[in-house]
Amino acid sequence: MVYLGVDLGGTGIKVGLVTEKGEILAKGSTPTLRERPYQAIIEDIANLCKRVVRDAKMDMADVGAIGVGVPGICDPNTGIIPFCTNLGWHKVPFVEEMHKHIDKPVIVDNDATVAGFAESIAGVSAGSSSSVFLTLGTGVGGAIIINGKPYSGAHGVGSELGHMIIRVDGDPCNCGNAGCFERYASATAIIRMAKEVLPAYPNSRILTRVGGDQSRINAKTVIDCAKEGDPAALAAFGQYVKGLATGIVNIIHTLDPEVIALGGGVSMAGDFLLDAVRREIPKMVMYKTMPFARIELAQLGADAGIIGAALLGKQ
Amino acid sequence: MVYLGVDLGGTGIKVGLVTEKGEILAKGSTPTLRERPYQAIIEDIANLCKRVVRDAKMDMADVGAIGVGVPGICDPNTGIIPFCTNLGWHKVPFVEEMHKHIDKPVIVDNDATVAGFAESIAGVSAGSSSSVFLTLGTGVGGAIIINGKPYSGAHGVGSELGHMIIRVDGDPCNCGNAGCFERYASATAIIRMAKEVLPAYPNSRILTRVGGDQSRINAKTVIDCAKEGDPAALAAFGQYVKGLATGIVNIIHTLDPEVIALGGGVSMAGDFLLDAVRREIPKMVMYKTMPFARIELAQLGADAGIIGAALLGKQ
Repeated sequence: MVYLGVDLGGTGIKVGLVTEKGEILAKGSTPTLRERPYQAIIEDIANLCKRVVRDAKMDMADVGAIGVGVPGICDPNTGIIPFCTNLGWHKVPFVEEMHKHIDKPVIVDNDATVAGFAESIAGVSAGSSSSVFLTLGTGVGGAIIINGKPYSGAHGVGSELGHMIIRVDGDPCNCGNAGCFERYASATAIIRMAKEVLPAYPNSRILTRVGGDQSRINAKTVIDCAKEGDPAALAAFGQYVKGLATGIVNIIHTLDPEVIALGGGVSMAGDFLLDAVRREIPKMVMYKTMPFARIELAQLGADAGIIGAALLGKQ
Repeated sequence: MVYLGVDLGGTGIKVGLVTEKGEILAKGSTPTLRERPYQAIIEDIANLCKRVVRDAKMDMADVGAIGVGVPGICDPNTGIIPFCTNLGWHKVPFVEEMHKHIDKPVIVDNDATVAGFAESIAGVSAGSSSSVFLTLGTGVGGAIIINGKPYSGAHGVGSELGHMIIRVDGDPCNCGNAGCFERYASATAIIRMAKEVLPAYPNSRILTRVGGDQSRINAKTVIDCAKEGDPAALAAFGQYVKGLATGIVNIIHTLDPEVIALGGGVSMAGDFLLDAVRREIPKMVMYKTMPFARIELAQLGADAGIIGAALLGKQ
């Protein structure tokens, strides 16, 4: 039996046909064109699913189920998507709509949850029973895996790890609160931190790199300059690592998973980031001689979404 | 079948004989005298267990298992207690030692976890599959129940909800970090907050109540004065509610349980506290129209420890 995994994003839809072990047999993509009614988008998803199955020279009869990762909150029990800000969706009966086109079980869940699930089956946290996955991107997405299954809480509003408040009255967040973890651990955060320290470092390599245009600073600029030893970049990076480590320590002291995997754009900093975080965490854990979660870099990259969605369907 | 529940504290040991439904048939207590070697304390626990069974006119053969709540971290798999700061215990082979006196299955877990488990079976969160329990005492203890079972994480260092950092670089905590939730949501916190605001309120009722001796201020003083409308007490109480609500919102955004139950000394403030917290939370949740955890007062009081421990044994 094989499974279809759908990674539904604000700009593109990706679909993969995936084995039980998480190997991709075929994949395809199409633009989301999110201004359209949800019915048109879901019809495109269904058509792309059919095309990917044909491309793999297989038949819909070989497909066990379809899993879908959505950039919003989901109710896996009803198949309704109550909120998807990126797509402007509100109470979309996703599963019902898909069933107009394909008669297969359809399972929906949050995209970060789905990617974390993929890592827990076929990625860096494979073999673990409990893990947490953090996507360090424009914001910070979170996934919680407990007893080998994605955990989104009793009302589907859990695992929003990016919105854990780590600094009461801190930096205002898009969610309406202030001091959320993502204000200190996202790509957006490291860019802000760099801009905040730059006035004290007029000769920073960061400024040279962007031709003096601060609006061109991205997370990679800051991290590359930090790797090269630029003092301004190192100051921003140090602040960033402290924020990231604080959220990770909160995860250790609450969920205590076996593995905490770091994915998303900022995690492309690789061992430079991982080593810095790994140095910080032991100073902050309560029980200094007790074991705690392994901190690792995610392995599946951009395919995590389709692999995880497919494996969700398998469940 | 009946079960023995042991509530091992820094000053006293309580033992109860409990039915499968969490009803107490008999109970007894004895001082801990914690300066003694652990062997002597454990022998006293075993003797108290035997006495309570006799008092209930039952036989050890009727007892299915013995559960024990310990004020520290536990390894339920090995039965070893790696750390118990209150008792000065380090790597105590608790279960092995108990078996020298009583030949019954013995299960150990953290005391807050055990009390939260009791609430989830026989208390305010009965019937729920997921719940969180917070003891608002000298510190803040936490319990996480997922799928009807106590959850302490992969290494036994989880559910330390009082040490979730909510204010980076905030008030220093005994754990070595700063800004932990318990620095803003414990009885200790509300006392500190009152002392901080008092200089601005020289005529505060709090000062009258303690005869001008600030060292006599306790959480009840502050809450009683707040109930009576004293401005200083209300200012401290407002700060306290904000801190408590922040931690609760973090729990909603991560674990999203069905119920969050408040126990411990500060929860004796009753509806005055509950209503204030319930007013604050909806302003802070991300998804304003989605349901989230019910916030409730714990019901079992001082007996939660023995009931939960016994029910742990039943599992």
